[in-house]
Amino acid sequence: MLVNIDTFPTLTSWLPIAADSDFPLQNLPFGIFSPSASASPRVGVALGDQVIDLSALLELGFMDEVYFKDPSVFYEQTLNDFIGLGQDTWRAVRLRLVELFRADNPTLRDNEAAKAAVLFDQNKVKMHLPVHIGDYTDFYSSIEHASNVGSMFRDPSNPLLPNWRHLPVAYHGRASSIVISGTPIRRPKGQTKPDNVEMPVFGPSQALDFELEMAFVVGKPTQMGQSVAVAEADAHVFGFLLFNDWSARDIQRWEYVPLGPFLAKNFASAVSPWIVTLDALAPFRVATPTQNPPVLPYLQFDGLYNFDIHLEVGIQPENGAETIVTRTNYKYMYWNYAQQLAHHTVNGCNINIGDLYASGTISGAEKGSNGCLLELTWGGKEPITLADGSQRKYLADGDTVAIRGYALKNNHRIGFGEVSNKLLPAAN
Amino acid sequence: MLVNIDTFPTLTSWLPIAADSDFPLQNLPFGIFSPSASASPRVGVALGDQVIDLSALLELGFMDEVYFKDPSVFYEQTLNDFIGLGQDTWRAVRLRLVELFRADNPTLRDNEAAKAAVLFDQNKVKMHLPVHIGDYTDFYSSIEHASNVGSMFRDPSNPLLPNWRHLPVAYHGRASSIVISGTPIRRPKGQTKPDNVEMPVFGPSQALDFELEMAFVVGKPTQMGQSVAVAEADAHVFGFLLFNDWSARDIQRWEYVPLGPFLAKNFASAVSPWIVTLDALAPFRVATPTQNPPVLPYLQFDGLYNFDIHLEVGIQPENGAETIVTRTNYKYMYWNYAQQLAHHTVNGCNINIGDLYASGTISGAEKGSNGCLLELTWGGKEPITLADGSQRKYLADGDTVAIRGYALKNNHRIGFGEVSNKLLPAAN
Repeated sequence: MLVNIDTFPTLTSWLPIAADSDFPLQNLPFGIFSPSASASPRVGVALGDQVIDLSALLELGFMDEVYFKDPSVFYEQTLNDFIGLGQDTWRAVRLRLVELFRADNPTLRDNEAAKAAVLFDQNKVKMHLPVHIGDYTDFYSSIEHASNVGSMFRDPSNPLLPNWRHLPVAYHGRASSIVISGTPIRRPKGQTKPDNVEMPVFGPSQALDFELEMAFVVGKPTQMGQSVAVAEADAHVFGFLLFNDWSARDIQRWEYVPLGPFLAKNFASAVSPWIVTLDALAPFRVATPTQNPPVLPYLQFDGLYNFDIHLEVGIQPENGAETIVTRTNYKYMYWNYAQQLAHHTVNGCNINIGDLYASGTISGAEKGSNGCLLELTWGGKEPITLADGSQRKYLADGDTVAIRGYALKNNHRIGFGEVSNKLLPAAN
Repeated sequence: MLVNIDTFPTLTSWLPIAADSDFPLQNLPFGIFSPSASASPRVGVALGDQVIDLSALLELGFMDEVYFKDPSVFYEQTLNDFIGLGQDTWRAVRLRLVELFRADNPTLRDNEAAKAAVLFDQNKVKMHLPVHIGDYTDFYSSIEHASNVGSMFRDPSNPLLPNWRHLPVAYHGRASSIVISGTPIRRPKGQTKPDNVEMPVFGPSQALDFELEMAFVVGKPTQMGQSVAVAEADAHVFGFLLFNDWSARDIQRWEYVPLGPFLAKNFASAVSPWIVTLDALAPFRVATPTQNPPVLPYLQFDGLYNFDIHLEVGIQPENGAETIVTRTNYKYMYWNYAQQLAHHTVNGCNINIGDLYASGTISGAEKGSNGCLLELTWGGKEPITLADGSQRKYLADGDTVAIRGYALKNNHRIGFGEVSNKLLPAAN
């Protein structure tokens, strides 16, 4: 008996799951984990405060109801091969998990030995980068963010460049330096040019920032020359995760003309470990803000392509308490992910499974809803005060930055966990 | 008996090699080829008009003098694992090949059966992309090119932006759409905004261009947080190839502010099939042009980091004869590859084997030595005339663009072959 997840929003599991858990039975996001430091990576799914080991489930015969062309995908170091099996398989696996873990199914519930082999405490496992990322693109799709940055970097009276409302501006980023939540980030050194000096100087960045973003992971590839229409985008998206696009504002300001950000960004970006599927996010679809002027036909869409996802960023100083410094929402995005993908491929650029497409910094219209310190402190002019009384224009060594996100509707919560990384001092 | 390649510039092979061949015994560049359309890819080395099959050499016992931790590297679909064996192994393989193919060594020369198993006509094999490219970066290191583009896109009286002489400007490009010479290129469609209209329009690019570049391939990785000093750069470079950074100028002009080129470039880039090692290029090292003002200490260098490499581009219309439209030289580069690598990693950005770092368009100071049509026709204002009498502002459907390059000194020629691709009409 297969269940349809979307029609069972109130289905509960025999596994104890806290009411405010990010990972109820309706979520079932995919990731790569090792049960212990010495164990090999494998595919896992988050449920409550546990990780379900799909490779163990398969070995014990609990996945026999799902047909796998190649069961070795559950023993891989990334999700790419599993994703490559296609949307029908992702769905079949999630439905099988709902079936196995629903409260009224005794199969696994009453089998203590199997449970011990299959379930691992999330706090005790080691999470890995969930996908091999062939290419990573960063969009710039929040109109509030683009307007704020344009005001500070260029012209406050005309902050948006002429192309901004006509296409989702983006640039290619560095794939090699994308790391998993928990990886320490080293403050980068680089070339900057302070306003008060004639020549550029070299040293540790003095304006280190986070950028609150979300990213989607490609689930179905295209060939060169092929385009993905807006209406086809969903078939090419595996899911979403949280993304912190660590940024050095002083390096960025000096280097970014005319070819865009480079060393200001490529020292590190970080992702949350669990990829939440499009299916799990379906109940939280909302309309995209009105786009004015109207966009060209290849960017027009029909349907709900934004998501109502609450987002927040906490900064925790070394040995201090965390302060939430911003609260915002993914629903504010001016350009939606279907438009991003359609634009990216309209010229025939090919995409691969595991490619990452980040939203760009997500800012709201209100003060305190901006997705980076550059905006929150208005270029360092208006420092924010943390719970311990210390002030921040930009990040201090030892700060831990955590981005968290969840969707919530009728007590139904689908969360992303967090991407949390500590900033280390620059290398000697 | 091992020979030192560099001390034997006049050594000849028993294999007949034309005097003007790009691939004498002193070159021995690496690539990936299939002997026939149905045969699997493997590692090859170019010699004269032949390809040496390293996997066959190994199987026949001719590589026993070289110690391999893992001989399977010769049966891989890319060079990455071979490159990962390290510089000592690359050198040992090249020296062993010199030994086997030098005129006075009968071992292979007089073994017809072995020769038939090991040598393949370059005109009959299928070449593949030589490396898996994790990340691709495009620099902007020709001062002539940057000045010309700055004049046309921005301000003729002040074409170079303030940062240009202080750091090698670069941006991240798309790795997925880098293809091997011979792959047809589809004219991209995209959004542009002609000067005479109010709103942007959508359609096939009307300003399709080539960019004559060279690129180096990373031979030794770094960890995140690690930097490569200028003096250490050579240890991280496997070799060089020719690179055509196909560009749609009308898309670029509209999209590129503020985050740099995106769809104007990521529909396709193309590489030549053979990677010429740093060792083979050693005799052609020349000084970098004087850098004024002096650069920051992390970019200062001591030694010869440019190469005297003659470069040219030919355009061949459909069913027509080829016209050489530009001749230039890699030695003109203002920023050298060691500086590019040092700058790229000074912030701790990690690099991987197979990463590609392209030079940016290579232009000389003279008219007719510019590396792209944008400059050669001055933005389409001064069309060039081909041998068949037809004119070009930008490329026409059916044009084949070939970039070729070689170094020449005392009758000693080390060449790169070519990267040649035909432009197909835009998709319907």
